[in-house]
Amino acid sequence: MRIARTFQTAPAAVPKENTAKYLDSALDATGFQAPDWLVPDIEDGTAPDMKAEGLENTVDRLAGGVEFPGEIWPRVQWAYDDERLRSQGETEIRTLVEEVGETLTGVVVPKVGRVADVERALEVLAGAEADAGLPEGSLELSVIVETAAARSDLREIAMLGESGRLAGMIFGPVDYTAELGGRAIDGDRPRWDGLLEALSNEASANDVVAIGGPFDKLFAERAGVTYYNAPAYADQVEREAAVGLDGSWSLYPKQTVQANRVHMPTVEELERDVSKIERFDAAKAEGTGAVTVDGQMVDEATFKNFANTVEAVRTIHARHPDQTGEVYDDDLLSRALELDTDWRR
Amino acid sequence: MRIARTFQTAPAAVPKENTAKYLDSALDATGFQAPDWLVPDIEDGTAPDMKAEGLENTVDRLAGGVEFPGEIWPRVQWAYDDERLRSQGETEIRTLVEEVGETLTGVVVPKVGRVADVERALEVLAGAEADAGLPEGSLELSVIVETAAARSDLREIAMLGESGRLAGMIFGPVDYTAELGGRAIDGDRPRWDGLLEALSNEASANDVVAIGGPFDKLFAERAGVTYYNAPAYADQVEREAAVGLDGSWSLYPKQTVQANRVHMPTVEELERDVSKIERFDAAKAEGTGAVTVDGQMVDEATFKNFANTVEAVRTIHARHPDQTGEVYDDDLLSRALELDTDWRR
Amino acid sequence: MRIARTFQTAPAAVPKENTAKYLDSALDATGFQAPDWLVPDIEDGTAPDMKAEGLENTVDRLAGGVEFPGEIWPRVQWAYDDERLRSQGETEIRTLVEEVGETLTGVVVPKVGRVADVERALEVLAGAEADAGLPEGSLELSVIVETAAARSDLREIAMLGESGRLAGMIFGPVDYTAELGGRAIDGDRPRWDGLLEALSNEASANDVVAIGGPFDKLFAERAGVTYYNAPAYADQVEREAAVGLDGSWSLYPKQTVQANRVHMPTVEELERDVSKIERFDAAKAEGTGAVTVDGQMVDEATFKNFANTVEAVRTIHARHPDQTGEVYDDDLLSRALELDTDWRR
Repeated sequence: MRIARTFQTAPAAVPKENTAKYLDSALDATGFQAPDWLVPDIEDGTAPDMKAEGLENTVDRLAGGVEFPGEIWPRVQWAYDDERLRSQGETEIRTLVEEVGETLTGVVVPKVGRVADVERALEVLAGAEADAGLPEGSLELSVIVETAAARSDLREIAMLGESGRLAGMIFGPVDYTAELGGRAIDGDRPRWDGLLEALSNEASANDVVAIGGPFDKLFAERAGVTYYNAPAYADQVEREAAVGLDGSWSLYPKQTVQANRVHMPTVEELERDVSKIERFDAAKAEGTGAVTVDGQMVDEATFKNFANTVEAVRTIHARHPDQTGEVYDDDLLSRALELDTDWRR
Repeated sequence: MRIARTFQTAPAAVPKENTAKYLDSALDATGFQAPDWLVPDIEDGTAPDMKAEGLENTVDRLAGGVEFPGEIWPRVQWAYDDERLRSQGETEIRTLVEEVGETLTGVVVPKVGRVADVERALEVLAGAEADAGLPEGSLELSVIVETAAARSDLREIAMLGESGRLAGMIFGPVDYTAELGGRAIDGDRPRWDGLLEALSNEASANDVVAIGGPFDKLFAERAGVTYYNAPAYADQVEREAAVGLDGSWSLYPKQTVQANRVHMPTVEELERDVSKIERFDAAKAEGTGAVTVDGQMVDEATFKNFANTVEAVRTIHARHPDQTGEVYDDDLLSRALELDTDWRR
Repeated sequence: MRIARTFQTAPAAVPKENTAKYLDSALDATGFQAPDWLVPDIEDGTAPDMKAEGLENTVDRLAGGVEFPGEIWPRVQWAYDDERLRSQGETEIRTLVEEVGETLTGVVVPKVGRVADVERALEVLAGAEADAGLPEGSLELSVIVETAAARSDLREIAMLGESGRLAGMIFGPVDYTAELGGRAIDGDRPRWDGLLEALSNEASANDVVAIGGPFDKLFAERAGVTYYNAPAYADQVEREAAVGLDGSWSLYPKQTVQANRVHMPTVEELERDVSKIERFDAAKAEGTGAVTVDGQMVDEATFKNFANTVEAVRTIHARHPDQTGEVYDDDLLSRALELDTDWRR
């Protein structure tokens, strides 16, 4: 199981004294503030006249490797309908792979169109990898699904996951809404529930990671006081987690904290599912295929959902014991780590 | 019009003195407690160490035919990603078809993957049928849609309905949620509305029956009292009926009663639609293409929806006059049976 | 950007003294009462025994051209599963194209099935166009998506938009619900949200116009008073606009007024988005790629959504300055017309 709870974009260059200010803080983040996937953003997060500096900053900060606890995935420029942008993207990919390819997990390519456009991006990446002398397949591709064409070809794009190189699909609701001519009549864009359900499905069918879109209303105001919009972001992330997305997009360290937390089972979920497995085990001693625990029929399929909760905690624990230690009490964590989650044991 | 209001699974073997206890009661059920489709369950409802006995019970109870008023559809073992299970499933299919093929309408195959896996199941069934000396096409196949791969290929799988052998597609939300990594954060699994809409559509496009998934929270507790969770199950079945699913999954005799009832037009619906047709007929005498009845524009398309209600009642009445007699009063039923529902009359 | 806010069907013949009464009033409508697309309806809106007269009325009223400010799109008879209806439809198409082809933008074909059926309709139209001596491609086709088969092939049908002849896809919820066996258990048909989202996407991916379905509960009653059901229709149109449909179906002049209005940005939206662009421009002077305006992160993608609002107003203004003049005050309209909406300026 791969960890991709958070996909945090950090502008690769900003008009501050230290133009890599946000990139630097993201690379230094620890604990729940460190994203599982850090995305130095040379695309929309960096101003048109600072793209070159964004690329330089990224190469400079990653050269020679970093201590960062997660995966590093720069986002380059690209658009299925703009050859100039694709050519800039190719140059950015080649530079990144040549200079810091060993520090990267892969690159993120935005605004892909139909499946042929994603194949084009895969070829560019494979070419850059070969030219840099890296082992074949060492770099992965993630794409942002934010055009009508990519949504139309989502099933075919996801099937490229079989190649082993396509690793992630991320929703881009802002460009997507603009492409479809959607409207925020009452202030909120549509949620595109159908797309999210399909994204989760196609990703799962092809062992690809699925990640939700950014939430851009970072702050809200009430009665004269402006506050960090924690509840609304958490609501979105919970909806994404519920339908099986692996992670959520973060634009901001506090969002990273929240998405890392929401994409871990809650204490209540873990207690509930550990306890259901324990009681199921007791009931199963009687030998029936489906038993009732707390009024719920439990069979192999139900059991798998409980086991998923436990497995998620174990995967996070293996990588970030500080995080599981902070969230779960020792007793519950021990029970979760010791349970036998193999139904056919 | 085929009746498939209820798809009731009954464990084929349980660790009781009479291991066929649930199968026996299901086969004896009458009236609203008798499911339209009875599914002796050799898969998840029967414990791993009782599979052989489940198969024996099924053969034993069905041998020589039964009085049961509905269709009989055993569920065998299968999984697109587990050759051992498929091999057991093939053995189960061959045994069932050889021994009691004439009593079955077909078999239910769970955890199918992409369309090629469903084709594999169709071949196994056709082979078993031929070897048993049954007429070609006498046995049908229904599949449980509960993997990301099957959802991804849903359109292609449904098109196998043209063969005449694929007869039903049933949603399996528990395995499906586990496959996608969905979560019951607040205690409830996602509803997968997009999938249900697609299931209803693809089934209709290919004359295949579509059935919703099981509701496993059989009992609920309030203020110290545990009760049968009638309202929550009825809510789910109503949502399924609204989007055009033909039937719902039942795990329990009371669920069968409820699903059989919900998948019949309500008294209010029948009164409303019979009355609209009657008033439309009067208005139509004036010769216009679209008339307004109770503020609603009624044209040929609207009329078809009213006629659907009447046809559903007629189909159920032809098979179960006791059920229509219990629900509708004589006068309303007579009006429904006598109306001319052919728009082009 | 094409204007298709309203798709108003008008029965082509009704049993009144002037059988073209509704067609005549629609052709005479002005201001917000004039639909962007007017659809003389020879199909479901005209009674079976008045089809010939409906065709005659349409030809008669359109012969020699009309003053009407929008596009004219007659709806003919057709059904993927009824050869007799298709043959009548072909005759109607040939008559319309031959007699008044120069006054039409195209024809609307209902009840199409899989993509092959739409290709058949395209061929019929191309043949009629050639035989009438009109330039190739002068007539467009729009189809009503109202069968399970068309929904199943929606992606492939929309791709015919590349031909340049398929121009619109309109949802037909009443026939669709009847085909799927959906039910209005509590009085309302399902909303088919998944279909609408897909319709918007596939239309956008292929530069085809997408239009929502009719709302047939024209009138409602409360405490003994019957009223025009303005709120419920507006709710539906707002949902359609939010997900990016270009327009909505109207059955009635008041519905046309409402849909024309809803498919224009509201005063609040225009004020909000003009102001965001203005403040973004000021902030951008500092040179960053993404800035925060009112707590919302604004980058190129966000900007596009604001620009969409402004572009929509400009498109409507170019065609109907009376309508923009009525809705927006002079100052706001001037700001909207003068802004630079090109991000890369």
